[in-house]
Amino acid sequence: MAKWIEAAAYSLAVHPDEELERRVDAVVDLIAWSQNADGYINSHYTVVAPEKRWENLRDRHELYCAGHLMEAAAAYFEATGKRKLLDTMCRYADYIASVFGTGKGKKRGYPGHEEIELALIKLYRVTGEKRYLDLSRYFIDERGRQPHYYDLEARLRGEKPEEFWAKSYEYNQSHLPVREQTEVVGHSVRAMYLYAGMTDVAIETGDKALISACRRLWKNLTRKRMHVTGGIGPVAANEGFTFDYDMPNEGAYLETCAAIGLVFWSHRMLHADFDGAYADVMERALYNGTISGVSRDGKRFFYGNPLSSYPGVDGNGRYVEKDYRYRRSEWFGCACCPPNIARMIAQFPGYLYSVDAGSVYVHLYSQGSAEVEVGGRMVTIDQKTEYPWDGRIVITVKPESTATWTLAVRIPGWCRSARMKVAGESVDTAAVTKKGYARVRRKWENGDKVELTLDMPAERIEAHPSVRQDCGMVALQRGPVVYCLEEADNGKDLSDVTLPRKAKLSVRRDAKILGGVPVVTAAARRRSKTGWEDALYRPAGSETEDAELKAVPYFLWGNRKPGEMTVWIREG
Amino acid sequence: MAKWIEAAAYSLAVHPDEELERRVDAVVDLIAWSQNADGYINSHYTVVAPEKRWENLRDRHELYCAGHLMEAAAAYFEATGKRKLLDTMCRYADYIASVFGTGKGKKRGYPGHEEIELALIKLYRVTGEKRYLDLSRYFIDERGRQPHYYDLEARLRGEKPEEFWAKSYEYNQSHLPVREQTEVVGHSVRAMYLYAGMTDVAIETGDKALISACRRLWKNLTRKRMHVTGGIGPVAANEGFTFDYDMPNEGAYLETCAAIGLVFWSHRMLHADFDGAYADVMERALYNGTISGVSRDGKRFFYGNPLSSYPGVDGNGRYVEKDYRYRRSEWFGCACCPPNIARMIAQFPGYLYSVDAGSVYVHLYSQGSAEVEVGGRMVTIDQKTEYPWDGRIVITVKPESTATWTLAVRIPGWCRSARMKVAGESVDTAAVTKKGYARVRRKWENGDKVELTLDMPAERIEAHPSVRQDCGMVALQRGPVVYCLEEADNGKDLSDVTLPRKAKLSVRRDAKILGGVPVVTAAARRRSKTGWEDALYRPAGSETEDAELKAVPYFLWGNRKPGEMTVWIREG
Repeated sequence: MAKWIEAAAYSLAVHPDEELERRVDAVVDLIAWSQNADGYINSHYTVVAPEKRWENLRDRHELYCAGHLMEAAAAYFEATGKRKLLDTMCRYADYIASVFGTGKGKKRGYPGHEEIELALIKLYRVTGEKRYLDLSRYFIDERGRQPHYYDLEARLRGEKPEEFWAKSYEYNQSHLPVREQTEVVGHSVRAMYLYAGMTDVAIETGDKALISACRRLWKNLTRKRMHVTGGIGPVAANEGFTFDYDMPNEGAYLETCAAIGLVFWSHRMLHADFDGAYADVMERALYNGTISGVSRDGKRFFYGNPLSSYPGVDGNGRYVEKDYRYRRSEWFGCACCPPNIARMIAQFPGYLYSVDAGSVYVHLYSQGSAEVEVGGRMVTIDQKTEYPWDGRIVITVKPESTATWTLAVRIPGWCRSARMKVAGESVDTAAVTKKGYARVRRKWENGDKVELTLDMPAERIEAHPSVRQDCGMVALQRGPVVYCLEEADNGKDLSDVTLPRKAKLSVRRDAKILGGVPVVTAAARRRSKTGWEDALYRPAGSETEDAELKAVPYFLWGNRKPGEMTVWIREG
Repeated sequence: MAKWIEAAAYSLAVHPDEELERRVDAVVDLIAWSQNADGYINSHYTVVAPEKRWENLRDRHELYCAGHLMEAAAAYFEATGKRKLLDTMCRYADYIASVFGTGKGKKRGYPGHEEIELALIKLYRVTGEKRYLDLSRYFIDERGRQPHYYDLEARLRGEKPEEFWAKSYEYNQSHLPVREQTEVVGHSVRAMYLYAGMTDVAIETGDKALISACRRLWKNLTRKRMHVTGGIGPVAANEGFTFDYDMPNEGAYLETCAAIGLVFWSHRMLHADFDGAYADVMERALYNGTISGVSRDGKRFFYGNPLSSYPGVDGNGRYVEKDYRYRRSEWFGCACCPPNIARMIAQFPGYLYSVDAGSVYVHLYSQGSAEVEVGGRMVTIDQKTEYPWDGRIVITVKPESTATWTLAVRIPGWCRSARMKVAGESVDTAAVTKKGYARVRRKWENGDKVELTLDMPAERIEAHPSVRQDCGMVALQRGPVVYCLEEADNGKDLSDVTLPRKAKLSVRRDAKILGGVPVVTAAARRRSKTGWEDALYRPAGSETEDAELKAVPYFLWGNRKPGEMTVWIREG
């Protein structure tokens, strides 16, 4: 419900809708009504098990749910100016601050599922109340300290701490104080929300040890533990991370919410360092491993987003059911992903631009219009583009009044050749590009145009040689969009399709395929099955035959008749 | 204990050992002493839960244990002439026949874990008592009939049949009457023991529907559900089969006992049809997926025999533990595999020869001497060979007296060129070969030699195009022995090693590698890691560098420092 309110708020900010706002208000009334006298809100612990409040932070989700309600409150206040949910959640936050902390008589606890850390920063930003920043920092600083709070708490419940079902505190990233952590571990959604919160606190406080921990964890994640789709957390066992370079494809978990969490964290890292490398990862997750989680019609969802699929194998670790075909579901018992997609898509407009130190940053490309404030003046920025299907972007700048400032236009990491004209004149793009942004400083006149052309051929991508699952394989990518082969276009036995190293990749549109989205084609090869009728193994040297390969955007897979799918294609 | 007695019996038959025989006798005394007045034997149900006897055939192992004791009894009687265990087990079998069957007042049950079917045939063969054949046939005929016995039995226990933990009666091959079964399904050891029993009964009774069911199941298994090592049953979930062409490598289950069961079944199919194709599969399992289950020193065991191994992934489905390296164990809680290997290896001599309709068949090659009876005369057959490391075999025939009969010498399916001399003269081997055996009919004189030369180059093998896990890969095989790469010889990142299609495969011995066993080497390629320091993905086209590839016999893997291993190698 909290994530739904948050999504509704972002939507209302750009698409006013009385009926939707009325519904949100009704839910807000219910939440406020449900608040206990002391400020506490949690229907389960209020109604079912009041005596167990705060008894099990390790496994239960009280602080997590509080965090989501705080995010909703901040978003709804910003969208509508209405204070009721915000005030309610500030009361709850104040109550939480009275329970947890280092002060005398307080519990030194912190959430088993992180989320409240980043939510308190949102509360801090909309209210200006430093106590919310302090509480967020407390939760982050306390995490993983010895004596371990979850040990103490387990003993108070009469349990043996070593009998923790997840076996290791790596599961919730409390195995070490956060500033000492070097590898992304455990449950991947928890990890992303924690790191996002750490980055927020580091930005707000200038905490150097904290931001360098974030950079270290970022490096481990994006250099060693991220799928090419931006999917993260490859196994179901812990809904999370395994070890460096372990990138299973078939049956990989890669929870939709984890990739969404990666977008959230990337967006924060981008604002810590203003380096396009963060936006590259954000964009990779946005156009691939997050939105694959929802069907074209918006009605069905993937919890897991494997990079290959085969009938009989599910998308949730390696479990086999005969004739099973992995496909999106209408709903889940644990329905975290659907509203998370909703709030991510609804806040997409907020990811496009930032302003920092006299520069307007254009992080992402998408047709539309926005207003930003730079040097005390409002500027309307207009984008005309078919991105991500086309690399031509025309940005029209309409300042309130003429002034000098910098427009920093992102040159995506995937782009190997970019050309730019500013007000009709060519610019040496490479020369003005620094940390992933082409920086144009000039006196901007009303109607000045920046014409950016990003070369966007379909390309073969390979993975690091230590990724054992992808050796000898290539993924196809065009712009930020990763492609895949589906049985619907290529028949069965996709693993036997070989893409010759020199085969030309073509791009074309076919109205009959997924609404005319660009499709990547190539002349490929596959083995004939002739002569195999009575053999399972035989001396190598089979003849191959022609096979037209047709790849579609990964995020659109599973929208037709369910069958095989693969992102990685064997190279020949 | 039963399998240990059986193994000891086969050993005693060729290597008399008073101390071992004394120990077996002591155990036999204990078993006989434990027999209930009615003939029943099962320590658990006698001591712990006498009221639950025969209450749950679906899940419990009373008939299974009885079967193993019967096999032990038959083997020990044949090895030593001692009747005590045989008589004890005949009494038990007679009691079982009084409980189960189609007669009035009898239970129409059959074992959840098959084994007694084939064991009763052994009892029948040593005693000549047809009632044991009848009881075996009853168990086979009754299996899978409606109303389903396990349904009835579950209701009597107050359980809902549909709540069967394994979900489907495919698990124990009782989903259909056996003559209607077309696919090998469920728990793979159960399946092999059932099919072996079915084949026994078909041979003894001439039941055409039964043998054709066996042939159909055999075809499904060996054409679609068998790994190149003869390993079967790829997943841990059901310790068994999945679907056609599903051949996971890393973490594949492939229980040692299942491959042993395949040897048992192959040996029986061979005696139904005298076709070398059955011996080919028997030999594949014998030299690869069975004996990989035991360490070189005979002290440690694999339960599962995956075809590739990677640190952090176990050999029992896809479970991840950091820094875990899959290796053999000293023992298992469910210790079926160690004594099963013992009895299989100990009965190996019995697999070498058969006599049928005036022909002496040589199925397998191994140095040694044997006596067989053909046409009423004893013949000593002597093999001199280093097989499987060398393809030259010299068979010396020493008949009691000169006579005409056929020597049928197996030309293995893996062999593409065989030459044969008989008493010094070349024979057109292809011309005399039928159903996998070169058949030489002549008047055999004492000392006649058959010199057989089987070309045994190292070869690349490929799998059917529908085996998605092996596309673009080759396995190396030399003679019947499948090879693998180990980290000990080839370093890490074995998946990135590429074997060029035209690279020459050489065979050499190195006393420092696994006792000087033949090693297959080739000039291979692998990607350099230079330039990958800061990248996880990049445009394809990496340079490769030389890599000497060194492959060792698969069955010897895991006898050195544990690390990566792979059977399937990428072809370039």
